[in-house]
Amino acid sequence: MSIKNAFYAQSGGVTAVINASAAGVIETARQHSNKIGNVYAGRNGIIGALTEDLIDTSIDSAEAIAALRHTPSGGFGSCRYKLKSIEQNRREYERLIEVFKAHNIGYFFYNGGGDSADTCLKVSQISDTLGYPIQAIHVPKTVDNDLPITDCCPGFGSVAKYIAVSTREASFDVASMAKTSTKVFVLEVMGRHAGWIAAAGGLASSKDCEIPIVILFPEIPFDKAKFLAKVGSYVEEYGYCSVVVSEGVKGDDGKFLSDQGLRDAFGHAQLGGVAPVVANIIKDGLGLKYHWGVADYLQRAARHVASKTDVEQAYAVGKAAVEYAIAGHNSVMPTIERVSNSPYSWKVGMAELANVANVEKMMPAEYISEDGFGISEACREYLLPLIEGEDYPPYKNGLPDYVRLKNVAVEKKLEGFEI
Amino acid sequence: MSIKNAFYAQSGGVTAVINASAAGVIETARQHSNKIGNVYAGRNGIIGALTEDLIDTSIDSAEAIAALRHTPSGGFGSCRYKLKSIEQNRREYERLIEVFKAHNIGYFFYNGGGDSADTCLKVSQISDTLGYPIQAIHVPKTVDNDLPITDCCPGFGSVAKYIAVSTREASFDVASMAKTSTKVFVLEVMGRHAGWIAAAGGLASSKDCEIPIVILFPEIPFDKAKFLAKVGSYVEEYGYCSVVVSEGVKGDDGKFLSDQGLRDAFGHAQLGGVAPVVANIIKDGLGLKYHWGVADYLQRAARHVASKTDVEQAYAVGKAAVEYAIAGHNSVMPTIERVSNSPYSWKVGMAELANVANVEKMMPAEYISEDGFGISEACREYLLPLIEGEDYPPYKNGLPDYVRLKNVAVEKKLEGFEI
Repeated sequence: MSIKNAFYAQSGGVTAVINASAAGVIETARQHSNKIGNVYAGRNGIIGALTEDLIDTSIDSAEAIAALRHTPSGGFGSCRYKLKSIEQNRREYERLIEVFKAHNIGYFFYNGGGDSADTCLKVSQISDTLGYPIQAIHVPKTVDNDLPITDCCPGFGSVAKYIAVSTREASFDVASMAKTSTKVFVLEVMGRHAGWIAAAGGLASSKDCEIPIVILFPEIPFDKAKFLAKVGSYVEEYGYCSVVVSEGVKGDDGKFLSDQGLRDAFGHAQLGGVAPVVANIIKDGLGLKYHWGVADYLQRAARHVASKTDVEQAYAVGKAAVEYAIAGHNSVMPTIERVSNSPYSWKVGMAELANVANVEKMMPAEYISEDGFGISEACREYLLPLIEGEDYPPYKNGLPDYVRLKNVAVEKKLEGFEI
Repeated sequence: MSIKNAFYAQSGGVTAVINASAAGVIETARQHSNKIGNVYAGRNGIIGALTEDLIDTSIDSAEAIAALRHTPSGGFGSCRYKLKSIEQNRREYERLIEVFKAHNIGYFFYNGGGDSADTCLKVSQISDTLGYPIQAIHVPKTVDNDLPITDCCPGFGSVAKYIAVSTREASFDVASMAKTSTKVFVLEVMGRHAGWIAAAGGLASSKDCEIPIVILFPEIPFDKAKFLAKVGSYVEEYGYCSVVVSEGVKGDDGKFLSDQGLRDAFGHAQLGGVAPVVANIIKDGLGLKYHWGVADYLQRAARHVASKTDVEQAYAVGKAAVEYAIAGHNSVMPTIERVSNSPYSWKVGMAELANVANVEKMMPAEYISEDGFGISEACREYLLPLIEGEDYPPYKNGLPDYVRLKNVAVEKKLEGFEI
């Protein structure tokens, strides 16, 4: 049997450490060149496979691939594109097989979240359904931390660290200003369905550095009166307060709080974030001066303050994916298994993709404090190890020296394909 | 003559490194205990002097004071409070003298921006106008970089680094997503009057890491058609684009672009930022998918990614202020003098406060590129050294270990005072 090549692709929203997983995949494959040939990366994710736009990663040096470990974003481009079921779009799966055949690809590594796990599962079934031998391994990645079975998702720890650090820093700032000026700082964070990222804001306060923080979780319907009472009591007691609000917070009516039907002077609908909405509620309800920020992409791209734990786990799942493939596995996903909390230790495990795809892990109710505005001790114990350790990128001229790969295309062998 | 005590206060918006200046003042004063007695810090700036709410910094250990160097925000509290002229409010100046007398204060160190320089100048004239001997030295601080004479202002370099790093990281992110999703990322930054901070966004792009960045400066009236053409051409050429917009950008009508007269569903006025406004203009004009962020306090509190140059300069001006006082100076401000660009070297100079107060240094027109959307080579040469070097704070449990001082009040000797 000839040595098969591997296909690797990045999918969905990128993170500060998805490239560390890519480094894990590519470096490990290179170490097993007697088992795996070239790693071809999809340019812009699965679209690269469908359009036969493959990147020959063998052209990039060992140094360049190693530098992926400290470079945020998706080095090969990502995409938001979910394969339909084979019944709905058999042509796409046949095309994948044509491309895999043309380039002698026997391994499919898909680096993404829940939707991608579903795509990966479908590809892993091609052997049976369409008779082409392929081993498909999913490499977990999502800032939302919502994949099941795995203790945490690579990508989340670094966002959590960014939000915890930023909330602490901004809280120090507003505390300095509170006497005559700003008394409340509102920070909007990601997490449309689950409050994992918002919860990380709670880590900014610790026993030796207490900070009054009100968290608005998407799991808890927004209660204006209760919220204003909480903020008011904190400002009364501490002189200031920070609010960490998830973009996904909804009102009693089930509508996003950010969806305020804002109109400009000409009556045009305007899209805003939830932070200014919350800030206005504070101004109207309490008359307090506020500032607000929206972290948006900054939070998930902030490799400069990445969690060392997260970087190591992201690399480890990439490495394990290749090792699992070599060991003959198909339709699985490396997971992070927590061995102990204090000191924190973890190892890589394995989950069946069928148990991962289309299952969303929500935040346990007991991770939210009784009043609904903070995190419990159990949540703190879970989160703290995930932000542990610093892993700074190298700097050049005052800026992180992030790598851009050559991303040279493999010569096409097939006709074009419209997606 | 008995040894006089010193008064130190932080004023206006705080920064990532104003506490480094405080460390410079206090540590240097401690080294000259034969010349300067205790350093009393004003709790919440000048308000602490007026209300006789003084903090005895001698109670905090050498380790705690040293930790100020790596702690953002104002460790003693700041305030936004500008002294009126002595003609308008003689009572406030007389009160200052009463407090100074009561606590044997002969040195006044005021750490702030343009308004504070004016206050410091007025205090420096008390000797003449009210017959109380005091030496007033201004310690420069402002993220806005708008003080004259000094080559740069401590506080600015770290904001500039944060914005440059964040813009580079978010640009890598949007580049990864652009094929099927977000094509433009908009980041709102501080700088209501001058475009110094927005200009720092331009550093994210360099010769070895080119990034299409459109900067909207407060100096350049917003031209919608030209802006859309620029963004459109970048997206055409690169597939994506980043926009760094100063909060102070105005339209042709002289009104802030952020002031869109937004109304919620009930017709209530809503305050928004300029980033969502610009994002909506892109959506309406080009139909491109966007994301936007607002850095707000995060940018000026981000000690975790401070510029080493900035930290060193902030400390140096605090140290120099005390040395100038000991040498008998009054009504002056330590400045940063640029000695050479490459390699960058600098030294501390001295400016007369009369030449500093109420003078705003704008960004030179030649620092903006011809099309008005970028920075010139001259600007890059000026800015790059200011973000040079990293100076990480210590971490504990995954979070920066910032110090909180004891901030013990000095016993009051006077009657209360209403401000």
